[in-house]
Amino acid sequence: MRGTAEDPLLAAAMDTAIAASVAVHGTTSPNPPVGCVVLDAAGEQVGVGATQPPGGPHAEVVALGAAGDRARGGTAVVTLEPCAHQGRTPPCTGALLAAGVARVVYAVSDPNEQAAGGAERLRAAGVEVLAGVRAEAVRRGPLRAWLHWARTGTPHVTWKFAASLDGRVAAADGTSRWISSAASRAEVHQLRRRVDAIVVGRNTVLVDDPQLTAREPDGTPLDRQPLRVVVGTGAIPGDRKVFDDAAPTLWLRTRDPRAVLAELAARDAVDVLLEGGPRLAGAFLAAGGVHRVLAYLAPTLLGAGPAALADAGVSTIAEALRCEVEDVTLSGGDIRVSAVPTPR
Amino acid sequence: MRGTAEDPLLAAAMDTAIAASVAVHGTTSPNPPVGCVVLDAAGEQVGVGATQPPGGPHAEVVALGAAGDRARGGTAVVTLEPCAHQGRTPPCTGALLAAGVARVVYAVSDPNEQAAGGAERLRAAGVEVLAGVRAEAVRRGPLRAWLHWARTGTPHVTWKFAASLDGRVAAADGTSRWISSAASRAEVHQLRRRVDAIVVGRNTVLVDDPQLTAREPDGTPLDRQPLRVVVGTGAIPGDRKVFDDAAPTLWLRTRDPRAVLAELAARDAVDVLLEGGPRLAGAFLAAGGVHRVLAYLAPTLLGAGPAALADAGVSTIAEALRCEVEDVTLSGGDIRVSAVPTPR
Ligand SMILES: NC(=O)c1ccc[n+]([C@@H]2O[C@H](COP(=O)([O-])OP(=O)(O)OC[C@H]3O[C@@H](n4cnc5c(N)ncnc54)[C@H](OP(=O)(O)O)[C@@H]3O)[C@@H](O)[C@H]2O)c1
Ligand SMILES: NC(=O)c1ccc[n+]([C@@H]2O[C@H](COP(=O)([O-])OP(=O)(O)OC[C@H]3O[C@@H](n4cnc5c(N)ncnc54)[C@H](OP(=O)(O)O)[C@@H]3O)[C@@H](O)[C@H]2O)c1
Repeated sequence: MRGTAEDPLLAAAMDTAIAASVAVHGTTSPNPPVGCVVLDAAGEQVGVGATQPPGGPHAEVVALGAAGDRARGGTAVVTLEPCAHQGRTPPCTGALLAAGVARVVYAVSDPNEQAAGGAERLRAAGVEVLAGVRAEAVRRGPLRAWLHWARTGTPHVTWKFAASLDGRVAAADGTSRWISSAASRAEVHQLRRRVDAIVVGRNTVLVDDPQLTAREPDGTPLDRQPLRVVVGTGAIPGDRKVFDDAAPTLWLRTRDPRAVLAELAARDAVDVLLEGGPRLAGAFLAAGGVHRVLAYLAPTLLGAGPAALADAGVSTIAEALRCEVEDVTLSGGDIRVSAVPTPR
Repeated sequence: MRGTAEDPLLAAAMDTAIAASVAVHGTTSPNPPVGCVVLDAAGEQVGVGATQPPGGPHAEVVALGAAGDRARGGTAVVTLEPCAHQGRTPPCTGALLAAGVARVVYAVSDPNEQAAGGAERLRAAGVEVLAGVRAEAVRRGPLRAWLHWARTGTPHVTWKFAASLDGRVAAADGTSRWISSAASRAEVHQLRRRVDAIVVGRNTVLVDDPQLTAREPDGTPLDRQPLRVVVGTGAIPGDRKVFDDAAPTLWLRTRDPRAVLAELAARDAVDVLLEGGPRLAGAFLAAGGVHRVLAYLAPTLLGAGPAALADAGVSTIAEALRCEVEDVTLSGGDIRVSAVPTPR
């Protein structure tokens, strides 16, 4: 097992690298949130690093800096294939070679043609290279949105909704506080903290007047606030909370999900959270603009009130938008479902 | 651990008794589907039995018959406290004493005042008695419906529905074949086979024309067919499949869920499956007539079409019908949720 993708020491080091990358998720776009661990020649962890905000050093450089001389003859364990190109910062392969590491282990390859070739470059310089360690965890986890963005040039969109077990997002009279559990709501605020933008439809702003910020359960703002985006062509009163100064807000006067994604891509948004309402979500789904569905289903029944999803362009069962369930967990009594729409 | 409720040998014997009871579930009402295993003095399984159809012997008598002389000095492991009263058959406590067992182990006590007292009777005769072995598995499993019936005098109702992740039971044009997976549908047919009655609303018969029988995936009828029950006051054409001769059918011309339950109780129905539609389910829920919700949520999105539940008497979020999730599993790609409505 030693020296292979199943080596438990390498998997453990990669888990540390993953944790380091998760900690910076949301601060690096459009760069990938990468994590790196440096092991010395004896296999001991001597440096940990993660991507710094755009313009700052990449994960490898941070970790090598922490390791210093002890990197020589050691192993660099990175969540993403080290880049071989000169961007705003020098190529990481150069830094790895200069530090004299004997081996580089990474989880997933760089899909970016310009940046790729790192593995080749390292091998050519005599460094042992091993790919695929904890690849699935990285692909589904911290690099998920960035890998999508690198492949497509548009942001990765997670549609999140909270509904009753019978699919209602509010009761007949419009009341909806709170359908989901405190644990689920806290989780969503942590999710908001990590994304680049939160998107909602105009009517959700009119009806619910949400602030759309990332907060602690007691209301204290978290340390990061994503861009707030409202989509719709009609009027919105200026006194809505979404226009307060807690975070920047973008109002896109369009009904075209593709225009929304292009506008967000132009602003370096990689990871986007679509928080409804039902009609805007329907428009995004119909346009193939949702890449992950995150449903918080409360164990409660309403039997009346607005449905979680509307106007998704499905008129008969054969046109149903099929998904694949990735994960089902319980979140404070709610059923949390993560699913991926099957491309048609 | 030996001789206590945690003794792994006793738990294993109880699991065999549970399996025996599950095999007869659906054939014993209004008697409980009980399972019994007899261990000889050395702890070896020498007899297994389960409740026979009404009028036939109880589980203990069947298992003791299989064990013969080897029961003497041994242990009887039973899912339910042995009865001490003379019903259509003699009391099981008498049979256990006559067989000379030294110990009786059971899972749950008999809530039936008339039948209870078995443990006391056995102890008085010098038999060692141990209660509570695998009690939760029995309470939630094979004896669930019967325990409810014994406590309340009315049947246990499981409301089963199959819906999309956004809570629709059909697409906008009414098509719904098939929302749920083949595995989920096969599971429901096995469930039908075990219940005493399947209940639907008149409109489901009008719109879907279901046969409401228990079948193999290829359409072959299973060995048991429950009573089919249609509820509604209006007319139903006589050519509907529910009126064919594949199983008996009862048409209850009422809109009162309590009247339905009373009528079913009068026919010795203990375990009832309510299969919709949304409005009849709403009426049952509003009346407190649902004891378990079994939702098959397909990982598919519709965005239009009828909702899984209607008219449940909830107009504002504070009135939401709260449930407790018992169990979430994947069933052929569907998310299967078992939940228990919280009594108000
Ligand atoms: N539980 C949850 O997870 C959750 C989350 C959010 C909202 N909600 C509930 O959802 C309800 C509001 O739902 P909704 O569906 O009316 O509002 P919505 O989806 O938030 O907003 C609809 C508006 O979005 C704009 N829009 C932009 N592109 C569109 C497109 N392609 N197609 C259609 N509309 C587009 C339109 O504005 P213009 O007409 O100005 O163009 C439209 O009126 C509220 O009751 C709220 O409580 C629940
Ligand atoms: N996916 C699933 O799990 C599933 C299962 C079943 C049905 N469905 C779908 O559900 C749809 C039919 O739903 P539905 O709600 O119209 O039909 P429903 O609930 O099957 O039947 C409604 C009828 O039930 C009778 N009823 C008896 N007691 C009632 C009460 N207390 N309140 C209201 N009605 C009562 C009424 O008949 P009278 O007017 O004659 O009194 C009423 O018209 C169909 O499209 C079907 O495909 C889906």
